[in-house]
Amino acid sequence: MTRVAVAQLGLHVGRPDDNRAAARAAVAEAVAAGARLVVLPELVNSGYVFAGAAEARTLAEPADGPTVSEWVRLARAHDLIIVGGFCELLDGRLHNSQAMVDAGGLRAVYRKAHLWDAEQDVFVPGDGPAPVVDTDFGRIAMMVCYDLEFPEWVRSVGLAGADLLAVSTNWPASPVPAGERPVLLAHAQVAAASNRMYVAVADRCSAERGVGWVCGSSIMGPRGYPLAGPVLEDRPAVLVADCDTGAARDKAVGPRNHVHRDRRPDLYPDAGARIPAT
Amino acid sequence: MTRVAVAQLGLHVGRPDDNRAAARAAVAEAVAAGARLVVLPELVNSGYVFAGAAEARTLAEPADGPTVSEWVRLARAHDLIIVGGFCELLDGRLHNSQAMVDAGGLRAVYRKAHLWDAEQDVFVPGDGPAPVVDTDFGRIAMMVCYDLEFPEWVRSVGLAGADLLAVSTNWPASPVPAGERPVLLAHAQVAAASNRMYVAVADRCSAERGVGWVCGSSIMGPRGYPLAGPVLEDRPAVLVADCDTGAARDKAVGPRNHVHRDRRPDLYPDAGARIPAT
Repeated sequence: MTRVAVAQLGLHVGRPDDNRAAARAAVAEAVAAGARLVVLPELVNSGYVFAGAAEARTLAEPADGPTVSEWVRLARAHDLIIVGGFCELLDGRLHNSQAMVDAGGLRAVYRKAHLWDAEQDVFVPGDGPAPVVDTDFGRIAMMVCYDLEFPEWVRSVGLAGADLLAVSTNWPASPVPAGERPVLLAHAQVAAASNRMYVAVADRCSAERGVGWVCGSSIMGPRGYPLAGPVLEDRPAVLVADCDTGAARDKAVGPRNHVHRDRRPDLYPDAGARIPAT
Repeated sequence: MTRVAVAQLGLHVGRPDDNRAAARAAVAEAVAAGARLVVLPELVNSGYVFAGAAEARTLAEPADGPTVSEWVRLARAHDLIIVGGFCELLDGRLHNSQAMVDAGGLRAVYRKAHLWDAEQDVFVPGDGPAPVVDTDFGRIAMMVCYDLEFPEWVRSVGLAGADLLAVSTNWPASPVPAGERPVLLAHAQVAAASNRMYVAVADRCSAERGVGWVCGSSIMGPRGYPLAGPVLEDRPAVLVADCDTGAARDKAVGPRNHVHRDRRPDLYPDAGARIPAT
């Protein structure tokens, strides 16, 4: 059993020192609560709502830059795993990236494969698989925001054996019918339930240049129900839940079914070419 | 714009005449409400909780048997499309099947590909794709119960251009945390939102041999929010919502994104062989 934390941070575009301080404070709060794995939002260093690519470039840093280096120091100091998003400069190009660090240093960098809206003017999409990294906690998968809306992508880490999917996000708010929960949370629930894994979502708060946020930080259990959150309030928050890799490795559902073995890959076409013109 | 109805029926194993009468009454109610497409639950003729394969066999009938033939008569009389589940006898074998009929007669039979629990002792799983049928309403996809929990299966009909996915189900109840909606409804929401299509779920009610039901009949819109239902009460119900194929063919999400074109099929592995032993 490992205590997992997700940190909902108030971030501000163009204020990397403040943003790093917010992350540092949240990590301290998570450590005090007993967490061994801390998930941080998307683009922690830079903020999200760039005036354009030029501004983003001034805020980007490499994976050995000040932000991820600080996470490595915190991970070493507290024997933690930290997963968080950062605006990355790599070979002269920008990526919407997510780092995993532990006491041993940088473990993985994932570069967001599905870019949302104006991100397409700023970032180069990633070309690699969503990582599934063996850690002291178990097998942790990595994903950023809009990635979670692609069931194929989620399935790829489920089938690769992920015990927990760490989602760093900045979910922009959109209208939600009265009495409903934002549907993005249903995506997190179904990602969990379809693969019987944990899904830990770290969202952000604090409106930025007129963009508000879902503030949907939450930890979903393998049955698809929240163990913590969703926050759904515009405030910083650290949520924790105790997660058990044993529960995530039991893919049984009901007395005789199994979420992965019951698949019928013989029947699933390679659907990539089937998009009708409409 | 077409008015779509889902009928939550009180069914009883071993009482096919009563079950057909319940379906007939619900179709009449849907017609009176102006519906042109009516979705009925899974295994309408037979009920669900069989004592065993032998009992199921006594209740099975071919696709030109009394149940589907009655649906054809109703479809002709009222110029309807009806989609509903039935216990099918085909070439000496039993299938958990779903028929689509319209004024022209039988349009399609789908045989459930993902069998739940004791269904495995009774039915032979289907070997064909989930159909997407061109109708006067638009392109209607067909699926039964547990099928909906396989994102690949749902994606296959989304990419084939389905405007609406008709789900005939008997969702057995399982424990739900206080304040939560049964996660099966999240599956329906995400199926809709991930593909910007309608999802019309016809569930059943009335406990049968000790098994209770989610009673989750509902119609989800292309943004993943309910347009009608979920009922979540153990009573027969007919729900209607007006559905527009134009809305289902607009796959845009936000100003610059598209739920299908944003896929990265270059990155999605053929995941069938990647299930780890755990």
